[in-house]
Amino acid sequence: MKLLQETLEQILPPDQTAMEAAAKHLDSLLKPLGSLGRLEEIAIKLAGITGCPTNTIGRKCCVVMAADNGVWEEKVSSCPQEVTRLMVENFMRGLAGINVLSRLAGADLRVVDVGIKGEVAAPGVVRKKIMPGTNNMAKGPAMSREQAVAAIEVGIETVNTLAQEGYGLIGVGEMGIGNTTTASAVLMALTRCSSDVAVGKGAGLTEEDLARKKRVVQTALMINQPDPSDPLDVLAKVGGLDIAAMAGCFLGAAARRIPVVADGFISAVAALAAQRLQPLVTGYLFPSHLSAEPGAKAVHDTLGLQPFLHLNMRLGEGTGAALAFHLIEGAARIGREMGTFDQGMIHNDFLVDVRG
Amino acid sequence: MKLLQETLEQILPPDQTAMEAAAKHLDSLLKPLGSLGRLEEIAIKLAGITGCPTNTIGRKCCVVMAADNGVWEEKVSSCPQEVTRLMVENFMRGLAGINVLSRLAGADLRVVDVGIKGEVAAPGVVRKKIMPGTNNMAKGPAMSREQAVAAIEVGIETVNTLAQEGYGLIGVGEMGIGNTTTASAVLMALTRCSSDVAVGKGAGLTEEDLARKKRVVQTALMINQPDPSDPLDVLAKVGGLDIAAMAGCFLGAAARRIPVVADGFISAVAALAAQRLQPLVTGYLFPSHLSAEPGAKAVHDTLGLQPFLHLNMRLGEGTGAALAFHLIEGAARIGREMGTFDQGMIHNDFLVDVRG
Repeated sequence: MKLLQETLEQILPPDQTAMEAAAKHLDSLLKPLGSLGRLEEIAIKLAGITGCPTNTIGRKCCVVMAADNGVWEEKVSSCPQEVTRLMVENFMRGLAGINVLSRLAGADLRVVDVGIKGEVAAPGVVRKKIMPGTNNMAKGPAMSREQAVAAIEVGIETVNTLAQEGYGLIGVGEMGIGNTTTASAVLMALTRCSSDVAVGKGAGLTEEDLARKKRVVQTALMINQPDPSDPLDVLAKVGGLDIAAMAGCFLGAAARRIPVVADGFISAVAALAAQRLQPLVTGYLFPSHLSAEPGAKAVHDTLGLQPFLHLNMRLGEGTGAALAFHLIEGAARIGREMGTFDQGMIHNDFLVDVRG
Repeated sequence: MKLLQETLEQILPPDQTAMEAAAKHLDSLLKPLGSLGRLEEIAIKLAGITGCPTNTIGRKCCVVMAADNGVWEEKVSSCPQEVTRLMVENFMRGLAGINVLSRLAGADLRVVDVGIKGEVAAPGVVRKKIMPGTNNMAKGPAMSREQAVAAIEVGIETVNTLAQEGYGLIGVGEMGIGNTTTASAVLMALTRCSSDVAVGKGAGLTEEDLARKKRVVQTALMINQPDPSDPLDVLAKVGGLDIAAMAGCFLGAAARRIPVVADGFISAVAALAAQRLQPLVTGYLFPSHLSAEPGAKAVHDTLGLQPFLHLNMRLGEGTGAALAFHLIEGAARIGREMGTFDQGMIHNDFLVDVRG
């Protein structure tokens, strides 16, 4: 609890002076004012994070938080539970989607076992198991408050290590069979939205399965009565170790002033939990893609961050975050590499500012 | 006219066998079926283009078609007309947005003067000037039918040269003060949509300017009466040399079976003109970003292609296409680099196909 508390206190507002200098610099560049749209918004946000008006994106890392979910036994997934462990082993063999897209992004990959059921046969995995999967939230709390805090602190520690190693951009993804169910439950608990808004088919459910999944989430919320004003209570009762650890990554990155990118639905729900613990985290947090999972829209609307990529993806693993690194990098390069009106020998009053 | 006619006849349907093999291959990879969404759609489309189930993206090039528009004199732009020429000179000095984003994408840049007013002082520009800017379409046809065909053929020749040089992915952008006005006119002529749908503020207009711009477009359409069923008539009477040349790029790329990426509003309107000349071009054409220009939605809906990137950009130059190269490359890499269920030691019946 000490590390979490310290981290929450270390998160400061973005540097307004640097953001204003960045905006002014962007307006001096060879383009109609504001015409690079959200790339300019990203460049300004980067300035707020680092305190520098222009930025270089250094080493990049995708973090995958992996854990199992006790609620799997309610048949909320079409996958055997062991797929969590098997896919983590495949991450370490370089075979999965996140491996391909991390390589494309020039990013390293860090996979953390924060609660996989069974022993992972892959030496490269960071071993931080809190418990071998959560308990079934349809029958009681998924975990204790202490376990939820410990999982969040795994995320903070992971990012602290990455910060020490010199990483300058972090993406946050997950692997955990059953975790669209827990993400939906956390979203409903935090926002009081309906199961029709929050619950989708995950990796592959039939209509009949979907109806059961909605009932399971409703049961979990009814039995556990998580307190919407207490994100730790929500994460412990109806969350997952992966979601809690991802929330910790977002908080840790904000405390270390490192830009951090959410992936799809589950990762964005973790970001929402982090935002509820410390609203200032928003200034350090970038969305990536709009997942095909129906709750994705609701969680991004609530976060107040709109995804850049519309690719109808629903794989998880951090794949959308890895793809968005290119946009963050593009924004940084615009600020650093584009010429000014003076350099381009064009008067910078040639265009009216239509943003106002 | 001979080159255009030959090119239209050389465009063949995508290779269905390769597309089916690509889809089957994607379904064998370590992920829930269809879970990489539109990346899978891109990978399948690439297979149709090249005839190979998996693909490597080779050398990449962003093409910028630059030309001036006579309609500028109706005060439809907040920019001096010479900005077309000045910005082209800045492209050759590496200072512009497209320079930064091409470099980020690892793409080369080719800038073609298809009708800039005045002499461009930059040796690297490809000189293919049809005329020094079009005539004012608010007073008569922007150009003759022969000039429109010649501009289209400049686009075809440009892509033919790139094909000979071994480029495997082409983005198509523009530079031409006043060309959101001509793009809106072409869109309205081809689709009969209203000026409220098609006409926006371009690089930077006030509300009053916008009202005048709408009237100018309506006047141009009324005076010239372009035939909606004859894309050459539309391009000649209310189009631009840049738009016609871009349409030629799309046609040329389809004929050479090279994947080609549209940029924002103006480029997508050129793609629509190409599609009307030869509907099979669609199988070779990728969208990129949804421009902030209001007509962007209408043109993409009409094309039947939905943009991947939602960045509220409105710069042009091919900047959105350059950013989308990363997604095309990601899709190709997925098909080529991800492991199969067999390699990953997971049964591939573990997930229900929810796409059906």
